[in-house]
Amino acid sequence: MTEQDAIGTLVVAGVGLIGGSLALAARRAGRVGRVIGVGRSAANMQRALELGVVDAVSTDIAHACREADLVLLATPVGQMGALMQAMAPALPAHTIVTDAGSTKGDVVGLMRACLPRHLTRCVPAHPIAGSELSGAAAAQYGLYEKRRVVLTPLPESDAGAVLTVRKLWQACGAGVHEMTAAEHDSVFASVSHLPHLLAFAYVDMIAACPDAARRFDFAATGFRDFTRIAGSHPEMWRDIALANREALQRELADYQAQLALLQRLLLDADAPQMQALFERAREARTGWHQRFVRFSS
Amino acid sequence: MTEQDAIGTLVVAGVGLIGGSLALAARRAGRVGRVIGVGRSAANMQRALELGVVDAVSTDIAHACREADLVLLATPVGQMGALMQAMAPALPAHTIVTDAGSTKGDVVGLMRACLPRHLTRCVPAHPIAGSELSGAAAAQYGLYEKRRVVLTPLPESDAGAVLTVRKLWQACGAGVHEMTAAEHDSVFASVSHLPHLLAFAYVDMIAACPDAARRFDFAATGFRDFTRIAGSHPEMWRDIALANREALQRELADYQAQLALLQRLLLDADAPQMQALFERAREARTGWHQRFVRFSS
Repeated sequence: MTEQDAIGTLVVAGVGLIGGSLALAARRAGRVGRVIGVGRSAANMQRALELGVVDAVSTDIAHACREADLVLLATPVGQMGALMQAMAPALPAHTIVTDAGSTKGDVVGLMRACLPRHLTRCVPAHPIAGSELSGAAAAQYGLYEKRRVVLTPLPESDAGAVLTVRKLWQACGAGVHEMTAAEHDSVFASVSHLPHLLAFAYVDMIAACPDAARRFDFAATGFRDFTRIAGSHPEMWRDIALANREALQRELADYQAQLALLQRLLLDADAPQMQALFERAREARTGWHQRFVRFSS
Repeated sequence: MTEQDAIGTLVVAGVGLIGGSLALAARRAGRVGRVIGVGRSAANMQRALELGVVDAVSTDIAHACREADLVLLATPVGQMGALMQAMAPALPAHTIVTDAGSTKGDVVGLMRACLPRHLTRCVPAHPIAGSELSGAAAAQYGLYEKRRVVLTPLPESDAGAVLTVRKLWQACGAGVHEMTAAEHDSVFASVSHLPHLLAFAYVDMIAACPDAARRFDFAATGFRDFTRIAGSHPEMWRDIALANREALQRELADYQAQLALLQRLLLDADAPQMQALFERAREARTGWHQRFVRFSS
């Protein structure tokens, strides 16, 4: 195996759906030897061990990372700064540091602040897979098959480190793309972070109604699908929203303007413009879905 | 069979997913004898005949309703006024008129305006089942199994007519509820009509971006589910939105206020309040989903 292929010891900080699934898939693909899980919940780490997601566990990232060839930070982004600070004095020079955060500008900022002498080995990444499930018990071998992973390398990142991370994700079945952190954050504010905020806000609004019980009683499959992402992890999404809040504020303002337009169409009972809007949306959504199904099946 | 059980000839105006599925299920359950489909698209009516969804077809509701024991109006609500006007001079006194519209206040208004001498036999109804599919080819036997149907009888509706409609839907596997048209429209503005408008507005906004193609490229399963209802029938949803626009305007105004709050939380980077909002939403959505799965499986 060349340097690009071999990951002797993988340290995964945060053994939940994202980190746990990477560990399972990478080991099955023969890309990693040993996996050490690091986490703050003793119960979850015990579960990860029992399920064979990791080979060993630790609560001490500084200690665990001494043995690592690659460290994957798969915690909520809000915890990554503390983890990087703890690792900084202990990290071997060759060790690659990557992450699975849903925002990238903030992770790049943390790497620059906390690991300034290690930037050649830092490769920020975002695997686009998730669900409303969390915890080690949610880890699954096939999570990344036919999914996309975005790498946002630093100008300092060395090509070997980028290639190792690329091959790691490809070995798990993912398609790997590269863009800048700013490009990433703008795109994901639009197609991922905003819908999550809209769904949380919507469900919270209904739940606060005096007749919430009756409203929920008559909610059906449209409601079910529209609100699925409102079952997502609150702490993780709080971190994402705050980490990407500048791009999100722009997207949210655009959406508020779009709703003001819709409110105007309702007030005017403007049937042609309303139908035109719905038709544009249906056409765009249908076309998108056909491409998505083709890509992911 | 008693009066409540027998529907010799069922006329279905609008043989799509909703009307076609009722015809299939009711005939399989032995609740109706003959089914006459009425529609304006010759191709769709031909398809309905070929698929055995109906026994005969007509383009003339006035002619068809002369033979009807029950007429189901399953077109978009925007077409129902013209259909009722056409039926009015021809409708036999015993014939029950019901509908499958997603809004009820407007249907009640149309019945009062167009069928003033027939109100004892009018039973407005809303089967809560649907999908982004349309046309006779979308009709399916099981569509109404374990779904809810809301009846909003008029004060004038006679008990026998209400019972016949109730038994018709129950025979198709649905649970039947009664409430006033105003109650219905308020509940459905909240849990059905608003999310459809939000999803249409969201997809239309993305599609209008200069870099729409790249944004769509990285949209994933959260986006897929959140936007599924943006693939719904534009004409039908235009009619629903306009028919229920007063309740919808209130819901939309409440949602705009909720988004203004969210925008404020982003601006202030208010982590505790944001997490609290997300947690309330997740708890409400998780509880709802458990009840929904229990009811519908």
